[in-house]
Amino acid sequence: MSETAEHEFDTWLWGKNDDRPRFLHAMIRVRDFDAALKFYIDGLGMKVLDRFDVERRRTTGMYIGFGEYKDGGMVELVHPWDDEEVYSHGSGYGHHIAIGVPDVPAMVAKLEAMGAEVTLRPQELIDGAPQVAFVKDPDGYSVELIQTRKP
Amino acid sequence: MSETAEHEFDTWLWGKNDDRPRFLHAMIRVRDFDAALKFYIDGLGMKVLDRFDVERRRTTGMYIGFGEYKDGGMVELVHPWDDEEVYSHGSGYGHHIAIGVPDVPAMVAKLEAMGAEVTLRPQELIDGAPQVAFVKDPDGYSVELIQTRKP
Repeated sequence: MSETAEHEFDTWLWGKNDDRPRFLHAMIRVRDFDAALKFYIDGLGMKVLDRFDVERRRTTGMYIGFGEYKDGGMVELVHPWDDEEVYSHGSGYGHHIAIGVPDVPAMVAKLEAMGAEVTLRPQELIDGAPQVAFVKDPDGYSVELIQTRKP
Repeated sequence: MSETAEHEFDTWLWGKNDDRPRFLHAMIRVRDFDAALKFYIDGLGMKVLDRFDVERRRTTGMYIGFGEYKDGGMVELVHPWDDEEVYSHGSGYGHHIAIGVPDVPAMVAKLEAMGAEVTLRPQELIDGAPQVAFVKDPDGYSVELIQTRKP
């Protein structure tokens, strides 16, 4: 739902009667919203579950993922309209989110063709293990791809 | 499984025959491993699925979560044995992971009693919405708590 005022949506998106603690999402702040959407939606194949344009905070938020809210494991993109800085990523080196995909080389080729920087080419880090690769999203966040279909 | 050599475990932890792309985990680098485990395991109630002590990289990795690998939405803690710096977190302000819990005030009280810094007290950011709170993990990463049981 696009351009949704805050009072119009169900604010209990993550569950109203859920006693299981669970991981809900990882949030990242994105400067170039169109580029981020191209990467996560067109590239990785996530879907947009909700978009919130909050005029008084001059911010757009979006929940994206491969499933529904109940599945957890989503990404929250937050785009402050007026941010112009290129984000730095601190010294907590190694932060990333990992996405499982059936075919890592194919996904890397697709993302690279779309302009993504590949920081680790698809490879088995351990013999016989799934191929992994690292790509940067448009804001410089690291995304690990792990193969979940054994060739 | 503790102290596991690399060849002894199933390297296809995330699935061998899975065509669903999905979110697997968020990775963070932690300096004080005992403090991190106290926060995530004793505090938040996650469980350790695997621990890998890799001598040649002088690093310990650990997958923790509320469910199993198939459920996705886990956290990977990576502890480089020799890191002594306090990590900085960049200007991509707002990165966090979000955890759903049934009772946010109770969890915040528990974590605070264990020494965690509370950066946003439990509150409804929107009337009628779930309570949320923000706490810092021992390495300074932000963790959002979102209530998933409606009072």
